[in-house]
Amino acid sequence: MRTLVIGIGNMTMGLAAGIYFERHRHFSLDAATPVIPSPDVAVPPIIEPSSKPVDNKLARVGTIMRHGYPSFDSLRTFDNFVLSYDRRLRAAGWVFEHLTPDSVTYNPEINRQKCDFFEDKAIHPFFRAKNDDFKGSGYDRGHLAAAGNHRLSQAHCAQTFVLSNISPQVGRGFNRNVWNRLERYVRFRARRSKNLWSCTGPLYLPRFENGKKYIKYEVIGESDISVPTHFFKVILVENKDGSFELESFVIQNRAMDDNITLEAFHVPLESIERAAGFLIFDKVKSIKSVNEKKHIQTFLKKECQKN
Amino acid sequence: MRTLVIGIGNMTMGLAAGIYFERHRHFSLDAATPVIPSPDVAVPPIIEPSSKPVDNKLARVGTIMRHGYPSFDSLRTFDNFVLSYDRRLRAAGWVFEHLTPDSVTYNPEINRQKCDFFEDKAIHPFFRAKNDDFKGSGYDRGHLAAAGNHRLSQAHCAQTFVLSNISPQVGRGFNRNVWNRLERYVRFRARRSKNLWSCTGPLYLPRFENGKKYIKYEVIGESDISVPTHFFKVILVENKDGSFELESFVIQNRAMDDNITLEAFHVPLESIERAAGFLIFDKVKSIKSVNEKKHIQTFLKKECQKN
Repeated sequence: MRTLVIGIGNMTMGLAAGIYFERHRHFSLDAATPVIPSPDVAVPPIIEPSSKPVDNKLARVGTIMRHGYPSFDSLRTFDNFVLSYDRRLRAAGWVFEHLTPDSVTYNPEINRQKCDFFEDKAIHPFFRAKNDDFKGSGYDRGHLAAAGNHRLSQAHCAQTFVLSNISPQVGRGFNRNVWNRLERYVRFRARRSKNLWSCTGPLYLPRFENGKKYIKYEVIGESDISVPTHFFKVILVENKDGSFELESFVIQNRAMDDNITLEAFHVPLESIERAAGFLIFDKVKSIKSVNEKKHIQTFLKKECQKN
Repeated sequence: MRTLVIGIGNMTMGLAAGIYFERHRHFSLDAATPVIPSPDVAVPPIIEPSSKPVDNKLARVGTIMRHGYPSFDSLRTFDNFVLSYDRRLRAAGWVFEHLTPDSVTYNPEINRQKCDFFEDKAIHPFFRAKNDDFKGSGYDRGHLAAAGNHRLSQAHCAQTFVLSNISPQVGRGFNRNVWNRLERYVRFRARRSKNLWSCTGPLYLPRFENGKKYIKYEVIGESDISVPTHFFKVILVENKDGSFELESFVIQNRAMDDNITLEAFHVPLESIERAAGFLIFDKVKSIKSVNEKKHIQTFLKKECQKN
């Protein structure tokens, strides 16, 4: 048995299954990592390069990649959320959640005070975020899949504290304010939906400097965990009548005025996709409304009534 | 038939095969992209979240990811090299080559003047590098898999001009000097080897600034192609006696003195792996020597004799 390494291991299955081994793999694998059995197979022969059209192109690929295939982003599936870990950035590239009215209902049995942040042992130690990396950095360990979205069981809540789901966030004025408000808004929408899907992740956006564009971000700790310049959240709401609505937000990772309403952070989905490097909710054929403001306004009224 | 998208499509094959479609996929696919047949399957049912241990975890994953799985880096296989394209950086993360004495021998029939840089149509337009992006940038379109390594046929040489294999490199003093010298050195070693494997790619290394660490790099063109701060090249040489030697280099992407010998750019492999986010040649069990200087010294003597 070995960990499923997303990548060519699958593509050349049959040719090169079993070729991929991760050196230094002297660490335990979290039960949350899906595993597939892999047969031991003989190492395939070296296929020489040729000027002729290659009869068996995969065999030639097997030769070129004979001594190890760098694996791609690590996919991590948890009981109630799924994320893709970017090993270079030491951070998730995206986290997906599926929420329902039931799953976000307040549950007095869930106690997030009992949850501790923990390392993701399925990530190779070279690329794994550690708790020590955050110490003295000045940043909060901010959740991408919010703990408050996972209220069906203590285990669901606890899993959101895995460091693969955590990103360095400015605490006061961001994580504890506007970002928290956005998370509450998502649950507000989930409670009124049939289903809600959420995709959350970091962005590293360029800025102009002397007429040129640069991407610049801090890295913290011994592991060099990247500090995103911005975060995005895209929600796809399936209404009770089966229609779909989409909202897409980008918020800068810095303290900001609490009076800014969430609709100020609406951005076109395409701008997130271009910056993030992947398409989001691309399977949905028909969307009734995009970045409609009325739900935020209703949310604002409800919040005001509470205070 | 659809393109093989490296990622979960493979993992959940059987559960969710066919779930993944790329929106806006209104572009032709290069013949070099491997394709696998994909059956049309019905969309699986929504599996509600549950506080109980999930009987069929993959089915729950299928629900969470129901409206599209962001694909991972795009794997691109060409006749004589293989690369992984990072769609966020608009650049390869690594390029692998397999060289032999025959494949690097000078071939008068190959004319690189007949080769033109061309877009990689297999990459979604949002994330694809274009020739226009380089115009006026001040950077060369530098090869990762060197054109001079692919001399068995004009087609092999031409394929190295695909923009997925190209990175913005400082021209004078880097691409046309030290980087070119390193490429000639790799061919020198290939000519004396039984087999040589090469892994080449960009790095984005942090720098200290006011006591904090930052990663900063320029992005060019409308596509925001990232300009690496450094490049790495790792070669694994299989000698005629079957023993293996490894050399790993990192060179900053800037003009530098031509008198610096290549051994100054030797770095420990691990430092490249940590920065790049993946392990390199991790399958090799036994390596006779690492960053041995004598081959560079022999190369230097041969080069001097030529002049």
